[in-house]
Amino acid sequence: MKQLTALTQPSPEDLRKEIRKCRTMTKSPFAVNLTLLPALVPPDYHAYARVIIEEGIRIVETAGNSPGPVIKQLKAAKCTILHKCTTIRHAQSAIKLGVDFLSIDGFECAGHVGESDITNFILLSRARQSLGVPFIASGGFADGQGLAAALSLGAEGINMGTRFMCTIEAPIHQKVKEAIVYAQETDTELVLRRWKNTSRLFANKVAKEAVKVERESTSGKFEDVAPYVSGKRGREVFINGDVDYGVWTAGQVIGLIHDIPSCKELVERIEREAEETIKKAGSLIVGGGSSADPPPGEVGEKMNSPGAEIWGVGQSKL
Amino acid sequence: MKQLTALTQPSPEDLRKEIRKCRTMTKSPFAVNLTLLPALVPPDYHAYARVIIEEGIRIVETAGNSPGPVIKQLKAAKCTILHKCTTIRHAQSAIKLGVDFLSIDGFECAGHVGESDITNFILLSRARQSLGVPFIASGGFADGQGLAAALSLGAEGINMGTRFMCTIEAPIHQKVKEAIVYAQETDTELVLRRWKNTSRLFANKVAKEAVKVERESTSGKFEDVAPYVSGKRGREVFINGDVDYGVWTAGQVIGLIHDIPSCKELVERIEREAEETIKKAGSLIVGGGSSADPPPGEVGEKMNSPGAEIWGVGQSKL
Repeated sequence: MKQLTALTQPSPEDLRKEIRKCRTMTKSPFAVNLTLLPALVPPDYHAYARVIIEEGIRIVETAGNSPGPVIKQLKAAKCTILHKCTTIRHAQSAIKLGVDFLSIDGFECAGHVGESDITNFILLSRARQSLGVPFIASGGFADGQGLAAALSLGAEGINMGTRFMCTIEAPIHQKVKEAIVYAQETDTELVLRRWKNTSRLFANKVAKEAVKVERESTSGKFEDVAPYVSGKRGREVFINGDVDYGVWTAGQVIGLIHDIPSCKELVERIEREAEETIKKAGSLIVGGGSSADPPPGEVGEKMNSPGAEIWGVGQSKL
Repeated sequence: MKQLTALTQPSPEDLRKEIRKCRTMTKSPFAVNLTLLPALVPPDYHAYARVIIEEGIRIVETAGNSPGPVIKQLKAAKCTILHKCTTIRHAQSAIKLGVDFLSIDGFECAGHVGESDITNFILLSRARQSLGVPFIASGGFADGQGLAAALSLGAEGINMGTRFMCTIEAPIHQKVKEAIVYAQETDTELVLRRWKNTSRLFANKVAKEAVKVERESTSGKFEDVAPYVSGKRGREVFINGDVDYGVWTAGQVIGLIHDIPSCKELVERIEREAEETIKKAGSLIVGGGSSADPPPGEVGEKMNSPGAEIWGVGQSKL
């Protein structure tokens, strides 16, 4: 499923144009992302949602703070909603609001990592154990080995942002793609933690300056750091190719990205790698595949395993 | 492979006694861990290493800062060395020092997480891509789904600390085990970052106090926080069962631990879950298992995939 991002468009009417343009470019269905975040001048989220509904978009990805009213508006229009979250608590709230499936975003992800810093190894397993709805994995994925691992932890699939930035088709400057290829996994910065709006950014000059200002500002006012984290300047980077011109998001996965393939080649490669990985794992099973039992359901299963001592029953040696 | 931890013993001679005691309890081989860390009064690491060698231990896990001299000492005695690291750079240095295999510790791990905060989803894949030696995965593992995921990313196996603390046999107070069962994945704290010795601790009262002191101390002196992070008081917790008495380490994986099984039940359960997970993944392959090709080698493979555009060759639309 491909996706447009609503807030990369300066106004709801620009989003309408972008949706219509996208329709001329593909016959496949596509989704729209609407992320609700703290901002000095918050966008009119309801107006963006209205355009999404009016333009007949059927699948919407929501994310961010207090998404309740917007989710309600979209559900009333019978949209299918994929909600993106970085904590199990938020996932559970979203399920109560009626979202249809979830995107679980680990600490390694690009952009808004949340404030809990729980990694996908933990978060995906917790989702498998405790949520009753299907979920996809976001943050940290670039290859088929990652896809196989995400499926192992219980996800239905993976969501890739940074990896797709580094494809031939991505409409961003070649110098940005090359910067991703050159980068190590250590080349990201967490910015805006002080304002509980933590974002993982590519560690360029301006992101490093922002971190310094954030750490050293005695007033603690957002205004001090605001010039360094301008989204407007960040968007310019993708056009002018000056990777230090503004801030732009990137996940730790930049350390796993070493080339700029076409989307077709990338997706086929991931599929091939995932199949090989799963088959290789299967070959490790002694007497492989001899068990006739189907895989049992996951939720709550561990608690009922025969022979397990539930806490309070177990005996310490002390 | 079971393992003793050298520095839980107050002196090298106590370690000698512990190794001998362990020999009376199992006929299986076991390893010893020796972690080199910044300390006000550093232990005599060479003396610990000498005892390990003299007692005929064949496999040693090393970790921590500047392990070169100790690794040299152990290699001269023909020990097999598993080196634990939280960055690829350290892994590469350790390989140059001659270590035999690696333990890759993601940001989610208990105890010393390092200063780079790279999660296991990234770190294990980077290890697969760039290291030429085998490695196991540490940090974030409690079940067979995790094992299957680690194998998918290229690890030879998993290493579990926190999960084994929560078994019937673990010689720690029942109240500590119950605290782990009750805890969420959000119930850990990172302490001592300011002194570049970051440790992930169970978020009890004293760990939270330590974080506060660390944040608010104007002098920035380690002495300010030292009383809060006493390892001696931490060890008392395991005996007296007062989980707030001192600091003790725990991984984010506490959020995935819900019971106190026997070690036998736990290991069998993990094996069963991993097999089920791998078989379930295999069933997703369309025309499952029809390919006659063996899985190819991993290192450097992606760069050579046919059809991929290596950077510099790829063409942006801009």
